[in-house]
Amino acid sequence: MLLSNLVGQRVKQTPNTAQIKSHILMLRAGYIKQISSGIYTLLSPAKKSVNKIENIIREEMDKIGGQEMLFPVVMPRELWDESGRYSSIGDEMVRFKDRNSHDMVLGMTHEEAAVNVVKNNILSYDQLPVMVYQIQTKFRDEARPRAGLIRVREFTMKDAYSFHITKEDLEQFYYKMYEVYERIFRRIGMKNFVSVESDSGMMGGNVSHEFMLLTPAGEDTIVLCDKCSYRANREVANAVVESYDDNEEKIKLVNTPNKKTIEEVCAFLNKTPKQSCKAVCYAIKGDENKSVVAFIRGDLEVNETKLCKEIQKEVVANDLTDNKSLVAGFIGPYQLNVDKNTILVFDKSLKGLKNVVCGGNKTDYHYTGISFERDLNVQYCDIANVEEGMVCPVCGKGHLYFNRGIEIGNIFQLGTKYTQSMNMKVHSNNGEDIYPIMGCYGIGVGRALASVLEENSDENGLIFPMSITPWHVYLCPLRYQDKVIQKATDKIYNKLTNANIDVILDDREVSPGNKFAESELMGMPIRIVVSSRSLANGEVEVTLRASGEKIMVKTNEVVSMVKNIIKQEMAKLN
Amino acid sequence: MLLSNLVGQRVKQTPNTAQIKSHILMLRAGYIKQISSGIYTLLSPAKKSVNKIENIIREEMDKIGGQEMLFPVVMPRELWDESGRYSSIGDEMVRFKDRNSHDMVLGMTHEEAAVNVVKNNILSYDQLPVMVYQIQTKFRDEARPRAGLIRVREFTMKDAYSFHITKEDLEQFYYKMYEVYERIFRRIGMKNFVSVESDSGMMGGNVSHEFMLLTPAGEDTIVLCDKCSYRANREVANAVVESYDDNEEKIKLVNTPNKKTIEEVCAFLNKTPKQSCKAVCYAIKGDENKSVVAFIRGDLEVNETKLCKEIQKEVVANDLTDNKSLVAGFIGPYQLNVDKNTILVFDKSLKGLKNVVCGGNKTDYHYTGISFERDLNVQYCDIANVEEGMVCPVCGKGHLYFNRGIEIGNIFQLGTKYTQSMNMKVHSNNGEDIYPIMGCYGIGVGRALASVLEENSDENGLIFPMSITPWHVYLCPLRYQDKVIQKATDKIYNKLTNANIDVILDDREVSPGNKFAESELMGMPIRIVVSSRSLANGEVEVTLRASGEKIMVKTNEVVSMVKNIIKQEMAKLN
Repeated sequence: MLLSNLVGQRVKQTPNTAQIKSHILMLRAGYIKQISSGIYTLLSPAKKSVNKIENIIREEMDKIGGQEMLFPVVMPRELWDESGRYSSIGDEMVRFKDRNSHDMVLGMTHEEAAVNVVKNNILSYDQLPVMVYQIQTKFRDEARPRAGLIRVREFTMKDAYSFHITKEDLEQFYYKMYEVYERIFRRIGMKNFVSVESDSGMMGGNVSHEFMLLTPAGEDTIVLCDKCSYRANREVANAVVESYDDNEEKIKLVNTPNKKTIEEVCAFLNKTPKQSCKAVCYAIKGDENKSVVAFIRGDLEVNETKLCKEIQKEVVANDLTDNKSLVAGFIGPYQLNVDKNTILVFDKSLKGLKNVVCGGNKTDYHYTGISFERDLNVQYCDIANVEEGMVCPVCGKGHLYFNRGIEIGNIFQLGTKYTQSMNMKVHSNNGEDIYPIMGCYGIGVGRALASVLEENSDENGLIFPMSITPWHVYLCPLRYQDKVIQKATDKIYNKLTNANIDVILDDREVSPGNKFAESELMGMPIRIVVSSRSLANGEVEVTLRASGEKIMVKTNEVVSMVKNIIKQEMAKLN
Repeated sequence: MLLSNLVGQRVKQTPNTAQIKSHILMLRAGYIKQISSGIYTLLSPAKKSVNKIENIIREEMDKIGGQEMLFPVVMPRELWDESGRYSSIGDEMVRFKDRNSHDMVLGMTHEEAAVNVVKNNILSYDQLPVMVYQIQTKFRDEARPRAGLIRVREFTMKDAYSFHITKEDLEQFYYKMYEVYERIFRRIGMKNFVSVESDSGMMGGNVSHEFMLLTPAGEDTIVLCDKCSYRANREVANAVVESYDDNEEKIKLVNTPNKKTIEEVCAFLNKTPKQSCKAVCYAIKGDENKSVVAFIRGDLEVNETKLCKEIQKEVVANDLTDNKSLVAGFIGPYQLNVDKNTILVFDKSLKGLKNVVCGGNKTDYHYTGISFERDLNVQYCDIANVEEGMVCPVCGKGHLYFNRGIEIGNIFQLGTKYTQSMNMKVHSNNGEDIYPIMGCYGIGVGRALASVLEENSDENGLIFPMSITPWHVYLCPLRYQDKVIQKATDKIYNKLTNANIDVILDDREVSPGNKFAESELMGMPIRIVVSSRSLANGEVEVTLRASGEKIMVKTNEVVSMVKNIIKQEMAKLN
């Protein structure tokens, strides 16, 4: 490939639309182009890299018996009605009517399609387990696309679905997939990644893990313990709240004029927020007449993901001034009588708490001296945001700290949610028909590329890992117009190409400085410079992009040296 | 791969939803599953075959300098407004609003996306020509999906776009692509295909060719000459009408009570339909106040594709009884005064015609004795359907006959339609900025698979060409449960697999008859039967699916024999 012919303009300026490294550099190198918010065209170098990533994923899926399929992007409503997700998924799913006014959706995940195809094709327990997968375009109408290929609306995803007779068989396969995921990420050049417990969200199911690339550019918060190996997404991390003991006081209803915030009330009553109980108010999404009041210790925050999971509904913030059974701004759990459209949720930080300040359910009044054990009879659950410094919920000794991460893959133990709702049964070995147990497993291909590049770059540009590089070699003659140089360069180009090495040849008439800068920006792992000075010694200069190491090599040894470098680099990635 | 594990039920019955061979057999073999009208899931064997087809296409595109990209499936309206196609394309394009009420479309072709990405990335004439391509999902909301993967709504397509400075350069590249297309079709196993002149339809542009697989199952009609190499899609074939001479009569307006059809009128006036002029009536699609009256010789039919191309609008049949300037049922070209919303079109079959019968523009009246040259001053164009037996428009000697075909690919010389409307300019070598000239080139991947199988099958099932077969070998032990047979079979399986040969192993406990029948239905090119009888001689039986030829082979020679067969078969396809 000749660089002069490559579609893609390289630019020096940092585009003002981009914040994170991978996004900035992929734009500057001319690898991606945004067509609409969160919708990109991949130019040839990015697509070449994506093809290599897809082939690595395909190889690893096939190794564990995966059957590659192709599910449709466009699906009929009926399929999604079967699982109930046509109505349970919100605006992120695109819905439209076809020319015959039939309701259709754009697939954002393919559990329904997978069950649809497996259910009439696998009839007996002895055909299981099976795992089917695809690498296909998906569309998810994200509210806030950002960070280039990290959070987009249209993306290519590898999604796999496994079917099992027993929970044990699913678990065994799940951990096999877990290891395959680690191998895939290593093979494509990912270094600093971890797996964490995660929320299964709209997928349903219980056990699930996310693989996270640890990077300050990540949009997820990962909670880690400084003593044990506990790691979780903050969206699911368990909050352990240290309790304190106290003598129980009597309940008093006190006047707190013009004290609105927890801080104001506590200061006025000479208490700390830890000694208070606050009420956080929500309405149910899509059904704003239903209210949710979440009570939590005054110094903590409600985690909405955990709250939604607890009540199995989506919520939106709402001050609930329209709810006649509540006195907005002064809601407390003591002697509170709510109507049947109001759900009360109690965080476990309140359990056993004594001498608490809380709303008086009367304008400008608060209670003091509330002891939860003595004065209330309620169920507690975990809806609190984990904070740095909290005690580890697993070892109970370490303290938690945060890291930022990009989710690069996820795996779910789904259970029978889809097989039951879509009535997929197989004959078991005892004659009974049973619902197979499912797992599902995703990797976003474009996001994987961007994540690898987020980790593999420096101030001069990208640094492609050998396994996914668009071209292995950036062949850089310093004056290609010079006949002698051209001849030597073409000879090297042909020899490398014949040895199945991917080469991009910078045939442009520009300054050496420009060529060097662009070769570093583009990030091919090996650069070969052909100049009249080096040719005088029968040599060319080979530079490794990652280390900057420079080696002078005889022209007739270039191919074997490049082959060796590729082999060594590939070995490191296995 | 174990057959017992393969997702996909094979069935004996012909499904009543399918008419053509490829569709019937792909359903019976469990290779595809319909999810909605014209929307399919490809099961693993079909997807494996499709992957091989895609790789062949990719190889051939890369050989001529193609740059693989990935354009989005979902695009914003603005992009399609630039070219004008947001409004000019009808119901076959899916339109929807995203969560921010932004108008979006599903891509059915990607000229706009290609210009969008090339236009800011290629700035100068010396960077041209370039060709970019993708292999991507498209959605076209077909009114009548049919024939399995032949006419679907969702499909994977290779679409390529080339950009040139001169028309000569485009033409040169176009014929290079023409040859590449022939090579791709040969390599994937297509035999009886031809290229024909075609209509460029919604693409715009002038010169275009379709590649057609000749088969009775085809939905297109191809016109061929029995003397020369003229071939065209009937939608564009030129009609040559043999004229006749006569003495000119005088014009008469005659009463023709209750004579409605051309046949009735001609019989009443003692003329033949060849001596008459009929009026065929249409309205403009989407603007039904606009009328189109097409005049044509009474024995011929109007070809709507040609008519639409002529007037550059889509039409729908309409009796035009609402048009006050016309007397519906008695419309004739002589002394006809129409309002400004009525377009008149004259087929060239009328040119020079004498003594013609036509409508009298008055209820129950017709003219006789109309001579077009003498009595009318109009422009003629070719809007007639070609009929078998007509004279060849190229050699003028042969006569035309019809064949049925499936369109398996198309190539277009687009001109500057898109670069002009989307304002893509490059610097030319004389300092001027010019609009590059484009070509575009498509192959439907799923349709290619179905077409190959339409041609490669027999009464027992499919016959995969070696280049695109899901597995090279169907390994068929007759009693896999028998330890000796299992050991011998596994050894062969491992040796073949280690030699990079794709094998499916029929490990099921079913009768030999069932295994043979299913192996023929599934269509792998080589079957190896391992039985206790053959093993007694240290042999296995190798059968070629295409010829039925059977060969007994020593077990230690199986791998080399299979390798040889594959090599020979692949050589035939090059």
